[in-house]
Amino acid sequence: MANVSTKPPSGMRDFLPVDILRRRHVMSVVREVYESHGFVPIETPTIENLSTLLGKYGEEGDQLLYRVLHRREALRRPLDKAAAEGRPAIESELADKGLRYDLTVPLARVVAQYGDLPRFFKRYQIQPVWRADRPGKGRFREFYQCDVDITGTESLLAEAEVCGAVASVLDRLGFDDFTIRLNHRELLRAMIRAAGILPELESSALVAVDKLDKIGREGVLKELRNREISAVSAEALLDRVLVGGDSEKTNTAVLNSLTKRVDPEGVQAIDALRDLLDLVRHGPAGGRIVVAPDLARGLSYYTGCIFEIVVPGLKGSMGGGGRYDDLIGMFGKKQVPAVGFSLGLERILVVMDEREMYPPLSAGPEILLCWKDVPRDQVVAVATELRAQGLRVEIYPEAGKIDKQLRYATAAGCDYAAIMGPEELKAGSLRIKNQHTREQLSLAVGEVASHLHPQASKI
Amino acid sequence: MANVSTKPPSGMRDFLPVDILRRRHVMSVVREVYESHGFVPIETPTIENLSTLLGKYGEEGDQLLYRVLHRREALRRPLDKAAAEGRPAIESELADKGLRYDLTVPLARVVAQYGDLPRFFKRYQIQPVWRADRPGKGRFREFYQCDVDITGTESLLAEAEVCGAVASVLDRLGFDDFTIRLNHRELLRAMIRAAGILPELESSALVAVDKLDKIGREGVLKELRNREISAVSAEALLDRVLVGGDSEKTNTAVLNSLTKRVDPEGVQAIDALRDLLDLVRHGPAGGRIVVAPDLARGLSYYTGCIFEIVVPGLKGSMGGGGRYDDLIGMFGKKQVPAVGFSLGLERILVVMDEREMYPPLSAGPEILLCWKDVPRDQVVAVATELRAQGLRVEIYPEAGKIDKQLRYATAAGCDYAAIMGPEELKAGSLRIKNQHTREQLSLAVGEVASHLHPQASKI
Repeated sequence: MANVSTKPPSGMRDFLPVDILRRRHVMSVVREVYESHGFVPIETPTIENLSTLLGKYGEEGDQLLYRVLHRREALRRPLDKAAAEGRPAIESELADKGLRYDLTVPLARVVAQYGDLPRFFKRYQIQPVWRADRPGKGRFREFYQCDVDITGTESLLAEAEVCGAVASVLDRLGFDDFTIRLNHRELLRAMIRAAGILPELESSALVAVDKLDKIGREGVLKELRNREISAVSAEALLDRVLVGGDSEKTNTAVLNSLTKRVDPEGVQAIDALRDLLDLVRHGPAGGRIVVAPDLARGLSYYTGCIFEIVVPGLKGSMGGGGRYDDLIGMFGKKQVPAVGFSLGLERILVVMDEREMYPPLSAGPEILLCWKDVPRDQVVAVATELRAQGLRVEIYPEAGKIDKQLRYATAAGCDYAAIMGPEELKAGSLRIKNQHTREQLSLAVGEVASHLHPQASKI
Repeated sequence: MANVSTKPPSGMRDFLPVDILRRRHVMSVVREVYESHGFVPIETPTIENLSTLLGKYGEEGDQLLYRVLHRREALRRPLDKAAAEGRPAIESELADKGLRYDLTVPLARVVAQYGDLPRFFKRYQIQPVWRADRPGKGRFREFYQCDVDITGTESLLAEAEVCGAVASVLDRLGFDDFTIRLNHRELLRAMIRAAGILPELESSALVAVDKLDKIGREGVLKELRNREISAVSAEALLDRVLVGGDSEKTNTAVLNSLTKRVDPEGVQAIDALRDLLDLVRHGPAGGRIVVAPDLARGLSYYTGCIFEIVVPGLKGSMGGGGRYDDLIGMFGKKQVPAVGFSLGLERILVVMDEREMYPPLSAGPEILLCWKDVPRDQVVAVATELRAQGLRVEIYPEAGKIDKQLRYATAAGCDYAAIMGPEELKAGSLRIKNQHTREQLSLAVGEVASHLHPQASKI
């Protein structure tokens, strides 16, 4: 009998019933709100070709992909070849598939693949993704994303809709203090140009700016220097991206101030941000958006507006998104503009746990059927009848004293125990014990549900 | 622009909205029925340690596991070491984790890990599993299992409960012709002994018998011979396992006939089967169980009763399960008896598709909000109000002629179009067009839901 570890692997988790109930509560609100906004569900496979995944997520993303090892002959061949050539085998010889890293790239593949999707495809998707990141509080290697995306239009109404959908989810879950931080990739690029940074260093500068919340102003300055950007340019860039305020009131001031400090392409991006702020005014995202010129978002596929949701007390973001007009075209068929927003399920749960934001939730059995000195096939018959009435019923599985069975009903958290002995069997009845009040009464088997749940059975 | 494949990898699938609706319909029935039987949900990680997975699934299972490639240093080290030693690297150096292969082994790990679970842990689990098997009709490399298990008791009531739960699911989905095939691992072992096969060839003989439905009597005879079992023993074994009938009526005859042809341990197993048949009589599995002495089940962890569900017209099984009293103990802590049953979601769906067994299902937007010559923030405001009424609303995202927008409403399958122009904006109303009858009427924005769904809004 080997003593192997029974813990899940690092960064992975088991969900016991109480966890599942909380996760389901959140996911059902997400689903309902997304559907009310006209989004329809899709799901994509856990395993994708590496050719689909690689080169979409930026310099750090590719490193964090989980790869699936080749099998049998497909594995033996490259290993033997490397040995014959007297060199170590290399990673790309050992795997051509990986685990889903986000839900956006698979959506882009789906839109490129299926010709008969609606022209404006509004899809939502709630599935786990995997990243070989360092685990931490609210950071796991397997976690769920809840995405909404609209493909097929460049209209800012699409931005407004995805922001409205996620804001509405958070409202419905009871969050009253979240903020959607907003920026535009073209504005970032304009600020980088205005700081005198060379075009070829642009993505490198973006990666550095993206770390502002983690390593602070001085850290980013240092990182920019390490990336061969001059001290003067680094300062000029940070002066621009850090003009942001932290309230909606300052949005106009921030945009006005930046207008004077960027080129015409930058001004165009600022106009788009102004339009979007105007558009969402009377929707669920109204009053929630704060212009944040320092927001960069790590993923490399964004091309327009970018978003991030923050909540006081949560390190990092609760979700993010943006416009990615070139990603679907990377699959080589045609260019299709798109914008999306992703909520992080675990990020929502970690805050809801801390703030105790859940309604009462239960799914366990409400009745434990206890029995003594009756044929077991009759116990099954009674359980079958109670379940047909819509009750959640567990049968005590072993012969034993009724007292012991009742103690188990308490331990298992059942609201009621139903006791069945020779007398009850003869009378076609059950002795029902309320586990909270300890009251007992005798009921005909056929009347248990209508007695315990008079409201439910009337409908 | 690289032209990469946009298909999912072989054996994997994308699910578009209509697929998701069907899958959800089945899963929600499964969930409801399992909960009515007192089972509670858990979920386990996609990635497990290979030490958890290996050696549990039998000779073929270990071959079909997906392994996750080591990363960075953990990969470089063994590859360099192999190169330095002038040999090819080996598989076990390149991975120590794999993808979930079933839901039973993870449950066993969970029961061994968490000390505070109920003594009789009745859990259900609906999650995908991965097997690098040859894809075929209804056979995929990523597929969902819907499992119920009861741990902590040797009572046959547990067998009766898991059989009842899956039978009740199939009833509720509308299946009226399924059969639960039943056998017992100890009866199989007794038949193998009675055929004069050596104990060390027992598991090998089981693997051969398991192929009966695929390769037939002659194929199994040949396979048994290849596994060093004499022709006489092979014939003697097949004579015994093939006494089975195909209806419940013959159960007694089959068991009586076998009683005379096995040793006392075999007779004990036969008695357990008789007891179980008696126990389920008045439950959902009553009349569904057929004793099948040729049923072997591939997985090596079974120790007692084994089950398999078959349906006319479906090649292979719709689900299976059995008792596995030693598996949890393999994690080195303590022995905990257990029994479970697993339904294959895809197997259910493939038959329901063929037989068109679905109720009407829909989740797309019911209203397309069409607009012209009104400010877009007002369009968002009206959509927000309609959604607050519980309606599923899509906004046409671009400026354009109303006719074009109405055609899109038809293409998108919306039941209604809501038209908003300057007049409607002024009046606080909408022109609602029924897309099926083409009737139009004007409604105040606040009254749309109560007019379209008078029943729903009364509650």
